[in-house]
Amino acid sequence: MVRGAVVGMAVYTDVSDEELSSFVAAYDIGMPLSFKGIAEGVENTNYLLHAEGGRFILTLYEKRTKSEDLPFFLGLMRHLASKGVRCPMPIVDRQGESLKRLAGRPAAMMSFLDGVSVRRPSAEQCATVGAALAALHEASADYELARPNAMSVMAWRPLIAAVGERADEVALGLAEDIEDEMAFLERHWPSDLPRGVIHADLFPNNVLFIGKQVSGLIDFYFAANDAYAYDLAICLNAWCFEADHFSLNITKARALVESYSKIRPLADAEKAAFPLLSRGAAMRFLATRLYDWINTPPGALVKRLDPVEYWRKNRFHRRMMSPADYGL
Amino acid sequence: MVRGAVVGMAVYTDVSDEELSSFVAAYDIGMPLSFKGIAEGVENTNYLLHAEGGRFILTLYEKRTKSEDLPFFLGLMRHLASKGVRCPMPIVDRQGESLKRLAGRPAAMMSFLDGVSVRRPSAEQCATVGAALAALHEASADYELARPNAMSVMAWRPLIAAVGERADEVALGLAEDIEDEMAFLERHWPSDLPRGVIHADLFPNNVLFIGKQVSGLIDFYFAANDAYAYDLAICLNAWCFEADHFSLNITKARALVESYSKIRPLADAEKAAFPLLSRGAAMRFLATRLYDWINTPPGALVKRLDPVEYWRKNRFHRRMMSPADYGL
Repeated sequence: MVRGAVVGMAVYTDVSDEELSSFVAAYDIGMPLSFKGIAEGVENTNYLLHAEGGRFILTLYEKRTKSEDLPFFLGLMRHLASKGVRCPMPIVDRQGESLKRLAGRPAAMMSFLDGVSVRRPSAEQCATVGAALAALHEASADYELARPNAMSVMAWRPLIAAVGERADEVALGLAEDIEDEMAFLERHWPSDLPRGVIHADLFPNNVLFIGKQVSGLIDFYFAANDAYAYDLAICLNAWCFEADHFSLNITKARALVESYSKIRPLADAEKAAFPLLSRGAAMRFLATRLYDWINTPPGALVKRLDPVEYWRKNRFHRRMMSPADYGL
Repeated sequence: MVRGAVVGMAVYTDVSDEELSSFVAAYDIGMPLSFKGIAEGVENTNYLLHAEGGRFILTLYEKRTKSEDLPFFLGLMRHLASKGVRCPMPIVDRQGESLKRLAGRPAAMMSFLDGVSVRRPSAEQCATVGAALAALHEASADYELARPNAMSVMAWRPLIAAVGERADEVALGLAEDIEDEMAFLERHWPSDLPRGVIHADLFPNNVLFIGKQVSGLIDFYFAANDAYAYDLAICLNAWCFEADHFSLNITKARALVESYSKIRPLADAEKAAFPLLSRGAAMRFLATRLYDWINTPPGALVKRLDPVEYWRKNRFHRRMMSPADYGL
């Protein structure tokens, strides 16, 4: 009766019907009609709540999300939603509070967004997401709070150092190669590009579509202040590679960067830095995936994400040193 | 970044947006609007699907549910739903099929039922569930298919034998006690009670309430032909004990059996056998929980259910040998 691999899940904290009833009673949303733990995100526990007053996502923040960052995240979503970005809108209770506690955890109720994530985005969907990212950057420009990027270039080396020679268990030669690459990135990383609040994790599983339209951007729990073009480089890595991760699909890459640029034109310095930013963005996900791979027991709680995918992407970018290679 | 215990999850099989779209296109339910893996049940993978035509549960049957049993289960739910039992109704596609395949698994789409499971049922809720169980037994009486109960008294000994002396790892003395108890149950188990299709797993997590009303009975994947009164004894064990599992709450027990009896009066032989059936029902869950406890790595995929809870319940019933002790 032992089960096979689990592909996704997120219910770390159980909420009883009694806890739910008293939590919901603080809001103007009527009685709860249905309440299901959903397998979404790997950071927090999420429930889909149907109440008389509509559908909501109830998020319980587990320890990987720092509670001191929650006002930044919730305020950002409120700010973006009020400017027309399709993202979850934190719901306030009758006291005007959106950050609450439930089952011993910080918790917040959000508006529910329809839509389905795509596994293999089309060029058209890459274009749509480019426009959505640019609109997000425009909308976040006057957000009053700031948060340093805990996953910036400075954060990668400690993760890599913690893994050390064990990187070679993932792929022979990776430990040495990653050291050299980190030295290069740290030496050349730009610090003077236009910056503001970025999403920093806009992967296909964090974008909802209805047909060809983006119906929702979700999971803002890596959002932070950093270079806008770095956010675009993260998207490029996540959305525009061929299925084998060895090479960029240039049609998709052009679709992404061109539609982004129509809404927020890139400065010359951003274009010049784009190959390097793409190379660094690949390293950022290589570093965290490698750390998680080595530190997560195989077959245990969550599906481990393959670090090799991002090693391939990183090496691809090393060969592409001109903005024109990205359609810029 | 290692996570803590996981309280529930059920997404063993991933379904891509492309697989979903072509699956949904075979039904008259419009386009998919939202699709979330939900943490429900431990046997199968469940998704909550919002389509233009409504809300549905999409179930992918994993290997613990035998595919040859699926026509029995789906036919039963259709039969019960058509007779007014609030249970998931299998939806047919344009070809009239309800049992399909998705992502390499047998799969079926069901109507969605509102409601919330209760963790600590009140006496009033025990009464409501007693009535719902009796109505289920009445409605299943003329169901044309049959399925032997793979979890009947004959199934317990192989599970216990597979655990053997390791039962003492759970509680000292359990291995010997369980042997004696099995011998007693096998010698005295009744075979001539009124029988028909029973739910066989009507625990609080398989009953949905809206307020005080039962809004849904779910998870029919242990349903089989067996004694009706045994089904009631399973409910008694699951719904009517005090929180420490050492003693029955007689108010709840009376509420359950009296409201059951109003709809389907118990024969004298059923009343006489009820203490023994309750004792056996406790053993049935002791046996499976013990097997799973020993065979599931701690902290792994699913939360293990405590076998000791059902050892306590079993020992309670050994002292209660009169039907009057159960309000009968």
